[in-house]
Amino acid sequence: MAKDTKKKEIKRIAVFTSGGDAPGMNAAVRAVVRTGAYNNLHVFGIKRGYEGMIDCDLVRLEVGDVGNIMHRGGTFLKTARSQRFMTPEGRRTAYEALKAYDIDGLIAIGGNGTFTGAMVFSQEYDIPIVGVPGTIDNDLYGSDFTIGFDTAVNTAIEAVDKIRDTADSHNRLFFVEVMGRNSGFIALNTAIGSGAASVMIPEKDATLEDLVDVLKMGARRKKLFSVVIVAEGNHFGGASEIAKQVKELFDFYDTKVTIIGHLQRGGSPTALDRVLASRLGFSAVEGLLEGQAGVMAGLVNSKIKFTPFEEAISKNRKPDNQLIRMAEILAI
Amino acid sequence: MAKDTKKKEIKRIAVFTSGGDAPGMNAAVRAVVRTGAYNNLHVFGIKRGYEGMIDCDLVRLEVGDVGNIMHRGGTFLKTARSQRFMTPEGRRTAYEALKAYDIDGLIAIGGNGTFTGAMVFSQEYDIPIVGVPGTIDNDLYGSDFTIGFDTAVNTAIEAVDKIRDTADSHNRLFFVEVMGRNSGFIALNTAIGSGAASVMIPEKDATLEDLVDVLKMGARRKKLFSVVIVAEGNHFGGASEIAKQVKELFDFYDTKVTIIGHLQRGGSPTALDRVLASRLGFSAVEGLLEGQAGVMAGLVNSKIKFTPFEEAISKNRKPDNQLIRMAEILAI
Amino acid sequence: MAKDTKKKEIKRIAVFTSGGDAPGMNAAVRAVVRTGAYNNLHVFGIKRGYEGMIDCDLVRLEVGDVGNIMHRGGTFLKTARSQRFMTPEGRRTAYEALKAYDIDGLIAIGGNGTFTGAMVFSQEYDIPIVGVPGTIDNDLYGSDFTIGFDTAVNTAIEAVDKIRDTADSHNRLFFVEVMGRNSGFIALNTAIGSGAASVMIPEKDATLEDLVDVLKMGARRKKLFSVVIVAEGNHFGGASEIAKQVKELFDFYDTKVTIIGHLQRGGSPTALDRVLASRLGFSAVEGLLEGQAGVMAGLVNSKIKFTPFEEAISKNRKPDNQLIRMAEILAI
Amino acid sequence: MAKDTKKKEIKRIAVFTSGGDAPGMNAAVRAVVRTGAYNNLHVFGIKRGYEGMIDCDLVRLEVGDVGNIMHRGGTFLKTARSQRFMTPEGRRTAYEALKAYDIDGLIAIGGNGTFTGAMVFSQEYDIPIVGVPGTIDNDLYGSDFTIGFDTAVNTAIEAVDKIRDTADSHNRLFFVEVMGRNSGFIALNTAIGSGAASVMIPEKDATLEDLVDVLKMGARRKKLFSVVIVAEGNHFGGASEIAKQVKELFDFYDTKVTIIGHLQRGGSPTALDRVLASRLGFSAVEGLLEGQAGVMAGLVNSKIKFTPFEEAISKNRKPDNQLIRMAEILAI
Repeated sequence: MAKDTKKKEIKRIAVFTSGGDAPGMNAAVRAVVRTGAYNNLHVFGIKRGYEGMIDCDLVRLEVGDVGNIMHRGGTFLKTARSQRFMTPEGRRTAYEALKAYDIDGLIAIGGNGTFTGAMVFSQEYDIPIVGVPGTIDNDLYGSDFTIGFDTAVNTAIEAVDKIRDTADSHNRLFFVEVMGRNSGFIALNTAIGSGAASVMIPEKDATLEDLVDVLKMGARRKKLFSVVIVAEGNHFGGASEIAKQVKELFDFYDTKVTIIGHLQRGGSPTALDRVLASRLGFSAVEGLLEGQAGVMAGLVNSKIKFTPFEEAISKNRKPDNQLIRMAEILAI
Repeated sequence: MAKDTKKKEIKRIAVFTSGGDAPGMNAAVRAVVRTGAYNNLHVFGIKRGYEGMIDCDLVRLEVGDVGNIMHRGGTFLKTARSQRFMTPEGRRTAYEALKAYDIDGLIAIGGNGTFTGAMVFSQEYDIPIVGVPGTIDNDLYGSDFTIGFDTAVNTAIEAVDKIRDTADSHNRLFFVEVMGRNSGFIALNTAIGSGAASVMIPEKDATLEDLVDVLKMGARRKKLFSVVIVAEGNHFGGASEIAKQVKELFDFYDTKVTIIGHLQRGGSPTALDRVLASRLGFSAVEGLLEGQAGVMAGLVNSKIKFTPFEEAISKNRKPDNQLIRMAEILAI
Repeated sequence: MAKDTKKKEIKRIAVFTSGGDAPGMNAAVRAVVRTGAYNNLHVFGIKRGYEGMIDCDLVRLEVGDVGNIMHRGGTFLKTARSQRFMTPEGRRTAYEALKAYDIDGLIAIGGNGTFTGAMVFSQEYDIPIVGVPGTIDNDLYGSDFTIGFDTAVNTAIEAVDKIRDTADSHNRLFFVEVMGRNSGFIALNTAIGSGAASVMIPEKDATLEDLVDVLKMGARRKKLFSVVIVAEGNHFGGASEIAKQVKELFDFYDTKVTIIGHLQRGGSPTALDRVLASRLGFSAVEGLLEGQAGVMAGLVNSKIKFTPFEEAISKNRKPDNQLIRMAEILAI
Repeated sequence: MAKDTKKKEIKRIAVFTSGGDAPGMNAAVRAVVRTGAYNNLHVFGIKRGYEGMIDCDLVRLEVGDVGNIMHRGGTFLKTARSQRFMTPEGRRTAYEALKAYDIDGLIAIGGNGTFTGAMVFSQEYDIPIVGVPGTIDNDLYGSDFTIGFDTAVNTAIEAVDKIRDTADSHNRLFFVEVMGRNSGFIALNTAIGSGAASVMIPEKDATLEDLVDVLKMGARRKKLFSVVIVAEGNHFGGASEIAKQVKELFDFYDTKVTIIGHLQRGGSPTALDRVLASRLGFSAVEGLLEGQAGVMAGLVNSKIKFTPFEEAISKNRKPDNQLIRMAEILAI
């Protein structure tokens, strides 16, 4: 599995988080630092992702520096999106910063954008990079779960549970919008886990008429209350737009819209995200030491697998069609 | 304090929840049922507030029927807003329903609208009513806390905590809208408890320029992240409107808006709300038996106090000015 | 995969929960009921597991009866351990009860004991049974996760997070005992997810001297605070016993013991447990209709797989050795 | 109310937390620092309470140093119990440390022990001290609530809610022990808020026979499940001891014991604790500036009140007898 070419010995590595933050990133950084220390590496943290790399904003991270951070949301290394890293000049400056610190290998924690940058960078410069999938969207090929996804779904479901408490006494129809710009993973799992009447996701072919049919069926069996989960990204617009159009077709319920929004990105990571982040951070360092480069460490069928960045970001990962069908059947 | 006129002996009482639901209502109903049973009363629950009263939708509630419900959000008696009860005919039908069941006294759990109805009803018909303040808004005169308020504030603060997790790495300004149509209690307590930079509430005189001054001050001391809490009801419009106007005056931060919405009404009630609801439900029954009528049971300075409905709904209850001033000082 | 012998058409099925309860069981029952309804089956719920089967305590479950239960801990069908079902007479009575209701198939939700009973029953009587793994212990062969495990681990980690909050200012050593009589899954995942200094589980060969060495190392790098997670079942006795013995070997810290206990069995199920329970309940009914019998529905590598009861309960499932090793490295 | 003698102008103050930690202490420190800054004071934090005072372990705290800490449990200033401060030499060394930093006033956050130390210290040395009540026990005279109490009660109730989930299907009797060495506040509020069958607290005269009577009554009305809340400090011993003795008198239920333990001290503070801590920290500084000394800032009937240390620690504060009676009635 390892590319294992005549690898240069790795003694000093740097880790950073980039792009949108995700709960569990701190656990991944902790694992990188401690696995590095165990292997006698010097580990550095780069602040604010590629921005900090360009600005030469590195700090030495010892074992004790990452104690008591695993349970915190966000990322203590901070994160950013970097325009400068998209230019050749930006990347050259970044490389020079890494050389100034004698960095032999990088661990990049992030999503699509992060790995696109890492791929270009590792084509231009001779520095091995191993990626760790950290994004609530769960849309990377090469890992059954990405770090932060489980926490985001739990947050969304807790919100719907609360809405259900209050709504179940009224004749109400709630449209709840969850995150997921190009992907319906959060929405589908939230819908199944909250017992929603229906779910609107980019991966599912459905018309608003189909949705109205489902709602009418619910009304016939005297459901006092229905929730529809809407992925941020879908063919019909956001939850507000869908609510408006549905109301025109079927004006039986008192219709409400809730957009859960940014709180889905925060919160203390769940057990799954902490353990996953620990495993992936740990395996990324081990992979780097074994000669892996230009790959993302993922968990596939409970085993660690390394997938080239190019595949990880270009291959499409979609929710299982069986799950989509089941969601419909259980919502009856 | 008691009106204690030649009171008719009370043997059968009914309890209902009305208006917007609030976490803790179930604990109040439980307390009414059990205190009733302890005093050898027959207790009935009326479904869906005044609507169910008009429809004669009463059920006998025994001690065991209210086991295992205290920790649930919402109200198992359901609630509704009733147009019919606003008409003399509606109220007459309701009264006849109560007479059919030989009800001698009522416990009404709700807010402003509920007590307005109760006041009119008790002026027209000879049936003693004691109210229990159940509303997340905390805006009734005659009780230091209303049932549901503490839970709503905790829910809002948890949401802001999560937003803070994710935002603190970015240069961001969040406008978070919380409930409170005419009252800033939830917003003010959320702002203090979440360390917000500012709060916009109906009770506070402030211009958007004042707000911008505060934000500029924060920017000067290099705050990477600020939250402004906005009460649903305020002079400038909702959070989205304020965000837009502030952006025109001071476009330094990446501005985001989150409207927490209906989830503030749900959730398992907090300890305070459960204990408060238990005390008020308990005292409402004891008050009814001692001859109280046309009053709301409240907790004032840790003691039970009965306040005439008229005062409870007409006297203005506002957040303490000292608290508003303190919120500003601690936000520096 | 299906045994698909000349199957009798299935029209009426019954579902029950048995043994220790686990969060998510309600979601599994809901899925069974709704998948049954979708396939035009009559679905019955049996109360209190095998006890209720013997007592002929069955209720018809319609689609609407399982609304609004998914988020609740415990099992609304109740559960029990049945001595009577271990006798041939008990099982005969149970079979007669099922025949009286014309039940053609059973869904059994539970763990080891439940499936042992189911296996014997299906050898004696001609009634197809499909099992659904519901136990917080995660110790059944044939499913990567059992229902309730994820919730239990999250509960344990939340408890340790709180202990950490308070302890991190004192020179303290906490021994925290979690559930798991014969299996270290909960303990190992809690240890990794809470950043514990060490973990004592039945599957790991370690002496108390090894543990003391780890603690001494922590003391040397001036850790003010350490947590050791102890599985209920292990070679050295419970947390209190281990704490006593460690104190004799290394009396540096102020030593405390917390036994998390039964609260690990409760609580609203996590997203993962709700989705898992929905999938397994759904697949169990589909399996039954396709001719499966004497098997447990499990999730292996994200796919549904049916495993004979005998294998499910006899084959040993142990935590991954790689994970155990990683836990030690990250704890440095 | 102010002692307002010819006060020396206060320019430099120090704040510390001492004794057992309590959720909300961080919010109190934040309020002290920011109110100090607003009044142009130099504010210092003393690490580890009186220990750090003796060791001259002070740090300058600026406005930005206390950002993003309010939602964290524990105390970032750390805390300790100090034997040395109980000796005249220890106090002299402490005083000299304060003089070396030109400290003109102290804010002491803690409970009984903390204020006993502060009282002695302020009798011996001319340095004004204002106390802030921070203890989960709620046992200080002069404040309706102490910081941390509300969080501790909520933690205990959440634990009982989870136990209830799992237990309600079995024929079980749970004894749950909560904190409170000399005081039943946590136990009483937990009992009311969790719907417990009974509560054993030091302030209530009751025999085990009384308890057994209550349990028998529950058994008669076919309660499948009962919880008894036991305060750590009570006449009969801990929960395990009581469970044993009750089992001898009434062996109907399967009896279990859970000791919630140290997790009651941790966790993110509730809204009430954050707002309370903010108010008390704020008022302590304002009080100090107005000449208060040797007093504890408390909240009594929603107003700030200063109570001499001697009264705060010596006057007995007990739960309201009405509440105890109500708890019994609602448990029927």
